[in-house]
Amino acid sequence: MVQAVASPRNEEGIGAALGILKQQFGERFQTGASIREQHGHTTTWIVNQPPDGVVFAQSAQDVSDVVKVCAAHRVPIIPFGTGTSLEGHVNAPAGGISIDVSQMNAVVEVNAGDLDCRVQPGVTRMALNTHLRDQGLFFPIDPGADASIGGMAATRASGTNAVRYGTMKDNVLSLEVVMPDGEIIRTASRARKTSAGYDLTRLMVGSEGTLGIITEVTLRLQGIPEAISAASCSFPSVEAACETVMAVIQYGLPVARIELLDAMVVKACNSYSKLNLPETPLLLLEFHGSDAGVAEQAETFGALAEEFGGTGYAATTSAEERTKLWQARHDAYWAMLALRPGCKAVATDVCVPISKLAQAVGEANDKAQELDLIAPIVGHAGDGNFHASLLIDMEDAQEVARAENFVSWLNDRAIALGGTCTGEHGIGQGKRPYLLKELGNAVDVMGAIKRAIDPDDIMNPGKILTK
Amino acid sequence: MVQAVASPRNEEGIGAALGILKQQFGERFQTGASIREQHGHTTTWIVNQPPDGVVFAQSAQDVSDVVKVCAAHRVPIIPFGTGTSLEGHVNAPAGGISIDVSQMNAVVEVNAGDLDCRVQPGVTRMALNTHLRDQGLFFPIDPGADASIGGMAATRASGTNAVRYGTMKDNVLSLEVVMPDGEIIRTASRARKTSAGYDLTRLMVGSEGTLGIITEVTLRLQGIPEAISAASCSFPSVEAACETVMAVIQYGLPVARIELLDAMVVKACNSYSKLNLPETPLLLLEFHGSDAGVAEQAETFGALAEEFGGTGYAATTSAEERTKLWQARHDAYWAMLALRPGCKAVATDVCVPISKLAQAVGEANDKAQELDLIAPIVGHAGDGNFHASLLIDMEDAQEVARAENFVSWLNDRAIALGGTCTGEHGIGQGKRPYLLKELGNAVDVMGAIKRAIDPDDIMNPGKILTK
Repeated sequence: MVQAVASPRNEEGIGAALGILKQQFGERFQTGASIREQHGHTTTWIVNQPPDGVVFAQSAQDVSDVVKVCAAHRVPIIPFGTGTSLEGHVNAPAGGISIDVSQMNAVVEVNAGDLDCRVQPGVTRMALNTHLRDQGLFFPIDPGADASIGGMAATRASGTNAVRYGTMKDNVLSLEVVMPDGEIIRTASRARKTSAGYDLTRLMVGSEGTLGIITEVTLRLQGIPEAISAASCSFPSVEAACETVMAVIQYGLPVARIELLDAMVVKACNSYSKLNLPETPLLLLEFHGSDAGVAEQAETFGALAEEFGGTGYAATTSAEERTKLWQARHDAYWAMLALRPGCKAVATDVCVPISKLAQAVGEANDKAQELDLIAPIVGHAGDGNFHASLLIDMEDAQEVARAENFVSWLNDRAIALGGTCTGEHGIGQGKRPYLLKELGNAVDVMGAIKRAIDPDDIMNPGKILTK
Repeated sequence: MVQAVASPRNEEGIGAALGILKQQFGERFQTGASIREQHGHTTTWIVNQPPDGVVFAQSAQDVSDVVKVCAAHRVPIIPFGTGTSLEGHVNAPAGGISIDVSQMNAVVEVNAGDLDCRVQPGVTRMALNTHLRDQGLFFPIDPGADASIGGMAATRASGTNAVRYGTMKDNVLSLEVVMPDGEIIRTASRARKTSAGYDLTRLMVGSEGTLGIITEVTLRLQGIPEAISAASCSFPSVEAACETVMAVIQYGLPVARIELLDAMVVKACNSYSKLNLPETPLLLLEFHGSDAGVAEQAETFGALAEEFGGTGYAATTSAEERTKLWQARHDAYWAMLALRPGCKAVATDVCVPISKLAQAVGEANDKAQELDLIAPIVGHAGDGNFHASLLIDMEDAQEVARAENFVSWLNDRAIALGGTCTGEHGIGQGKRPYLLKELGNAVDVMGAIKRAIDPDDIMNPGKILTK
């Protein structure tokens, strides 16, 4: 089991903070067991380590007030959006206070003329897109879960659209952040580009709450494309599908999404979502552009796919048919879980240079078979990012050990191929040893930054860095 | 005059370092006056503050060796690429050692299948593109000058293509950096996306040599587009031209370049480059894509421009005609200088939200007139970034004072409009007060990072931060 080792608790400080926060926030401060449990880690196999209390913040000032109390008493602070992170990010290994920002859910400003907006961190991506739709705008980052924008920024999320629109690092223009001393800073102006000093925006994006708490996010937006076309294509092998993806990227085809589902996932989706897809590896695609543009892209893809044995390829611009086509991808997580009721899903998240994708996926399949593990694979293939989701019976200690073996092997293998142990989920608790393997002495520089900004280590301690 | 205040010199340390470096590097360490002068600031109106000596490094190990000597004796280190920066970045206000990386000019590796490459920092962008051409690849960032890739990363450069391809922050995948203690780190893997810890790559991009010295850059590349189309369009007013740009961006037209030249610049180019352009504001454009795609983009632009009174619009895919069309833009800097022989050009570099572009450019024109200054304007209009280049007689103290007045007004105005004092040139020496105005207490966080990583302030001191 990827164990989140508990750190020593500052009982005296925690006790003092609990008292002050109760007084300061009344009903908006909760210490009941179920609320605390719900604010610890709730997904995958990492154990739940609940905080000692939860503040439901309503403003940056609220957050600053909580931080000041916790700073005075050296009490850990853990920011919480929707709790959909996958690496134990919201766990409280040394106890402390969870700051829940879900009530900070206002879209503060939409500047349609500048294709940008300012939102509070608790706005979810679906709520934002609902808000934007009437203005012909959308926010493209789609990690699957209906995560909060603050949480997506904090973990440098990406997902299915990243191949075309980039990740959170590319789509956050500026952040308001409460620092460990309670100061509220703004990292950048609203200009589309800047050379004004150190890139604090990008430093905060992906810092997983360990340097400060995001209280407002300024985002780049996109116009809803004139035309959207979706397609699926089946392949004789996972290697053939990956080679097609590699050809698409090398050709420069501006696909908006290009997702890989291996045969096991397709089978699971057929069963779960009542579909009739051929049970072989599948690519799902989306093209964005003008009417003529998407037609041309779809045609070019068809020609490329044919070279690698792609079959059953058809593109459609009908919204209804598109939704049906993508159903499999959207249901994939639940469909996979349904493959083995009662199991826990263990997320992996390696990302390799695109030229190594076919090799990496092939080897991951072989390794899972060798270890007798059920490990369906979906991938944001256009970025070289894929997830082998291990379905594990947590009662079977031997199987758990084999799963740990697989995770360790996969992360090492990705690093050896010039890639990373995490394309989009972040380091959290579970991947700290792999961060060291991947970046070596660069992690010392991260540590120096952490100590400079948060000398008492109160901001989401036990994540990213191993002290 | 934007004076670069000299800091106290550590004479003893500098003396010791000079002796050791002479022994260690022989002929590759130079202390002659002309070489030192050439490695101080040589552009715009900031005074030249030469270093005490120049090491011509040939490897990361060389750089590390110099850094270790300088660290031991607390001597400033100033990295030098091609010296084309515009804000005094290569000046040595407290003396010290310039590390010239121009001999580190190898393209280490091109991974055509991954659309990436690794280069030493002294490779210039033109040399890189010459190297890549045969493989059908190019590196899109074009700041005008044939700058070094290391320098472009250090200042977070961008330029004409940024509206489509982003800035250096978007196109650097990973860096090798020599840190202030001589340690050599690698900031990230070669994966196209990552969530592996703090984004040290983006922290180093734009840090202007104040946190470490870049010794290798891994870059994203692009396939050379199937078709490139260029176009120009004249407008009755600078506001009409800007409004067209705003419409283009809001429409989502994926222009590769959209550059603004005001009437004064067009006039200067006609005279300097023997052209016959109508002497009114001009937009120059480039479209990248498939044959059908660029034709469609060009047509859409024409329709948008017409709404704002655009005239003389024609697009061409002929390479020869494209080159001629862009001649004006490439010669603009020299053409502007020729408007007033003997003058100094003072670069400004504000960037505003695109919806404020017409207003900002209009006000800048008015302000220059009010102050009786010659201030031709070119702009990377699609990003809201424009340069009013003041042509100043440095012998005329009153004119210099009026120019200072203008620069100060323009930076303040951009900040007030939600923009930045620097879109792409960086802070260097000259813009430090404006960084404070723009980002306030966020600059304290930058200072904390600087002190943590470079506690003795030996890395390019006197840049970005005001101690």
